[in-house]
Amino acid sequence: MSLSTLGEFGFIDRIRQRLAANHPGLSVGIGDDAAVFSSRDGWQWVWSVDALVEGVHFDRSYVPMESLGWKSLAVNLSDIAAMGAEPRYALISLAVPDTWSLQAVDAFYQGLESCSETYHCPLIGGDTTGSKKDGFISITLLGEVETGSAVLRSGAKVGDFLFCTGRLGGARAGWEILSHGTKQDVPFYEKSIRRFLYPEPRVEAARWLVKEIPVSAMIDISDGLSSEIHHICRESKVGCVMEESNVPVLEDAARWFEEKGQRPVEEAIISGEEYQLLFTASVDHPFPWIKKAREQQIEIFAIGQIVEAAMGVTIRTKHGEKPLMNRGWNHFQ
Amino acid sequence: MSLSTLGEFGFIDRIRQRLAANHPGLSVGIGDDAAVFSSRDGWQWVWSVDALVEGVHFDRSYVPMESLGWKSLAVNLSDIAAMGAEPRYALISLAVPDTWSLQAVDAFYQGLESCSETYHCPLIGGDTTGSKKDGFISITLLGEVETGSAVLRSGAKVGDFLFCTGRLGGARAGWEILSHGTKQDVPFYEKSIRRFLYPEPRVEAARWLVKEIPVSAMIDISDGLSSEIHHICRESKVGCVMEESNVPVLEDAARWFEEKGQRPVEEAIISGEEYQLLFTASVDHPFPWIKKAREQQIEIFAIGQIVEAAMGVTIRTKHGEKPLMNRGWNHFQ
Repeated sequence: MSLSTLGEFGFIDRIRQRLAANHPGLSVGIGDDAAVFSSRDGWQWVWSVDALVEGVHFDRSYVPMESLGWKSLAVNLSDIAAMGAEPRYALISLAVPDTWSLQAVDAFYQGLESCSETYHCPLIGGDTTGSKKDGFISITLLGEVETGSAVLRSGAKVGDFLFCTGRLGGARAGWEILSHGTKQDVPFYEKSIRRFLYPEPRVEAARWLVKEIPVSAMIDISDGLSSEIHHICRESKVGCVMEESNVPVLEDAARWFEEKGQRPVEEAIISGEEYQLLFTASVDHPFPWIKKAREQQIEIFAIGQIVEAAMGVTIRTKHGEKPLMNRGWNHFQ
Repeated sequence: MSLSTLGEFGFIDRIRQRLAANHPGLSVGIGDDAAVFSSRDGWQWVWSVDALVEGVHFDRSYVPMESLGWKSLAVNLSDIAAMGAEPRYALISLAVPDTWSLQAVDAFYQGLESCSETYHCPLIGGDTTGSKKDGFISITLLGEVETGSAVLRSGAKVGDFLFCTGRLGGARAGWEILSHGTKQDVPFYEKSIRRFLYPEPRVEAARWLVKEIPVSAMIDISDGLSSEIHHICRESKVGCVMEESNVPVLEDAARWFEEKGQRPVEEAIISGEEYQLLFTASVDHPFPWIKKAREQQIEIFAIGQIVEAAMGVTIRTKHGEKPLMNRGWNHFQ
């Protein structure tokens, strides 16, 4: 059966049965003009939206639909995590071209559902429509955070240490292998490929961090570490010195970059779609905090320190200190 | 200057300066990973999303960018109105193809801003990206409604009267004139064209109705009256008899349809993108309520009555009663 035979309303019924959410506070889910839900005393709402556009953010020739479904929710969960908030509800806006079969759309929802269950964030409504050529997925999330506790990009202070939550480079290596590599490469770089196809937003880590560590600013690494640090510095009106040798690289990815004759750390620094957290914390020494996190099975790495704005954003390598280029992903280019 | 010169972050700054929202309850607006805001005691949130896809929902050859900006917010405001709620905040997810100039995008935001101001619903964040070929606009809105007072599609009861809030057919006539008519037609059908390009969601009317009239179910007319009544009947498990002669047709549109040899009322019944409200009310007689609404400058029309589900959805014409076809817009066809 094709989507056009099923029709818009048949399609909505299908999704509705599949994703029927039963959540405390939720009064109306999928199927009306809008979803309805209540607030909790002492909490604020945190609201984000993020879109994936076919041909810009994803290419179906090497990204399975299930991964696409997972990823489209995961990238939004990562935004909520970056505020230190708990994800609560999701809405989807989906534009499906004729080239997507009903089977493909089902696989998409399977991935979405699996991510939604893993992170306890039910899909409570949305809008589905056709598209002429390319698919378009926009997901909007609501999260909750204790009133006054949202972590912004603008809170970094001179002297704070800069941390990240995981080893980087995997998403870029995974993307390179799937888009430009050979089938023979795939089994040797499973971790990197998994990082690219099924990123794991650091929702629980974020909640632990904001409760246990004096986190002053936070952002998720979607466009690349080199770009995100510039966002924090710009919004916080500070500078930063990053220690190149401290930037953690996923081993699996390092092998790939080395094999290609590239410097792993350089690739890790510009790798986008990592969805690890980059944060600053007002602590005297990073080590006790790294240890404290490790006791919770949370790996954090101290990769730099916040300095005066006038000093800019730099990176210290074994050849000396140089400006760190803002090599973010520019979706208009 | 083009969008690619300006870049993603230059673009966001531009929007940020333009739409800086200062709203009670709002802690963080445009510029962080997510927006942050508080709730009010005694109110619930109402959340919707609606997308406009180039080539499916709009054609830039006859829809000005300013209208597109207005409309993309207006269609969402209409969903919030249909719940009986007050719009509060908006987020936008925009995918811009190379074919849209910076000037075009500015005009889009001008229309959006104008609608946002008219309906007191600030844009507090979003996501902007590129697109390969077609533009995609997805807007998500949060509204508030007094706890327990959201009006659903499922509340219609046998014996209730069916009402709509305005004269129909204008959006369809306007669309026909712009897409298939001649330039000479335009000045003669200004009202219809306005209905199509700058629809006015019935936000204030909705709030008045749910407070002053025992409204039992409500939906907004986005796909056409003939389709929306089927939604209400399906969700409420009832049937309906509509009185064809009572369906109000916009005079301006009626002239257009007559000139083309069509029956105005038939066209008005299937006209989509009207954004008037269709609602049922548990009242003994419609006239006192029509009068009461008129005193508030709100025109409502009694166009049918709710019956048992077994009787189906029918329309009574001067030639007798017949089933009312569910001629909704199916975006997959």
